[in-house]
Amino acid sequence: MNQPVPSIQRLPIYLRFLKGIRNNGDVYVSCTRIAEEFGQLSVQVRKDLGITGIVGRPKIGYQIEELITAIEHFLGWDKKTDAFLVGVGNLGTAVLNYPGFVEHGLNILAAFDNDPKKKDLKFPHCKVYDLDQLEEIGKREKAEIGILAVPAGAAQEIAERLVKIGVRGIWNYTPRKLDLPSKIICEDVKLSASFAVLSRRLINEQ
Amino acid sequence: MNQPVPSIQRLPIYLRFLKGIRNNGDVYVSCTRIAEEFGQLSVQVRKDLGITGIVGRPKIGYQIEELITAIEHFLGWDKKTDAFLVGVGNLGTAVLNYPGFVEHGLNILAAFDNDPKKKDLKFPHCKVYDLDQLEEIGKREKAEIGILAVPAGAAQEIAERLVKIGVRGIWNYTPRKLDLPSKIICEDVKLSASFAVLSRRLINEQ
Repeated sequence: MNQPVPSIQRLPIYLRFLKGIRNNGDVYVSCTRIAEEFGQLSVQVRKDLGITGIVGRPKIGYQIEELITAIEHFLGWDKKTDAFLVGVGNLGTAVLNYPGFVEHGLNILAAFDNDPKKKDLKFPHCKVYDLDQLEEIGKREKAEIGILAVPAGAAQEIAERLVKIGVRGIWNYTPRKLDLPSKIICEDVKLSASFAVLSRRLINEQ
Repeated sequence: MNQPVPSIQRLPIYLRFLKGIRNNGDVYVSCTRIAEEFGQLSVQVRKDLGITGIVGRPKIGYQIEELITAIEHFLGWDKKTDAFLVGVGNLGTAVLNYPGFVEHGLNILAAFDNDPKKKDLKFPHCKVYDLDQLEEIGKREKAEIGILAVPAGAAQEIAERLVKIGVRGIWNYTPRKLDLPSKIICEDVKLSASFAVLSRRLINEQ
């Protein structure tokens, strides 16, 4: 099945919208209504939702509850995904505190930092350990994802340590491009890419 | 000129790579070399770089310094872009401390928060003011961008206040979709979109 990245990227915003109108008591929704909400073409919305395998019915549209279930299942957000987080700085703390990720099944088992003062920080779902304990805890508990929120200079080394303890994917909040075995799935959070788009649009629309 | 968003999004990583090899003493670079570095097709790299207006020479490639200048000029990163930041929580603090954005010309004139304790925080380039002072300072100093790092529930209200004091663009770090006049350029940092891509790739490559 063809799964364009931009379509996958749009699913979370559709999902949030769908949960909102479901909570307001709506039962059906059309592509046109979703398209209007997000200023997109209706055919694009249909294509995006189609990657989850769900098909709307002519004149009725989608059953909202079914659509929510289909999106969450497609993204694996209907089950828990265990993770370790390394780097409890500002970005790491933001990820630990962000309620949306928990709702999407992200289950951070433990956080690590090399600053001993960070151990006293309290987070809703996990404790902060010394970075030295990564391998020891990684032996005991298995995580699918490693969340990398360390300074750029430490990114490659910590990523390799996360791979060694068995993560399959790295969610990379550092600006560093990682060099890892091809079987490791690496998703970069590209804040500079976002700033580039904003910057260029400011020029184009001057 | 056709400027696909994915091409714009890739420019910052090319830029970082080009500065690295320039600092190592290299003078020319080929599309093939850049493509290999990022695991991309050479024609894609040529197309991406082409949006800046620069053209490589057969068998020689690009003069690195010229290419850096062209990318920075295309993105407007060769001049300062003034900004206000609202919300000095973890994400806001991460943005204020991120050295890469300063290098890209982002010049945060002032930060605002409704928690008076935040006023004591020290940042390299700006002070933190009470949110009540936004309009007063916005009258005195003009910013092109408003950086929105407030809780989701306050996003729309603060975005409207930023628009009122004259920002042309909003860099939205909240998960909320903003409803703003169409002339306002709004770039959302989509952390959930990134998590969606990672989640689906973990399923696809199981």
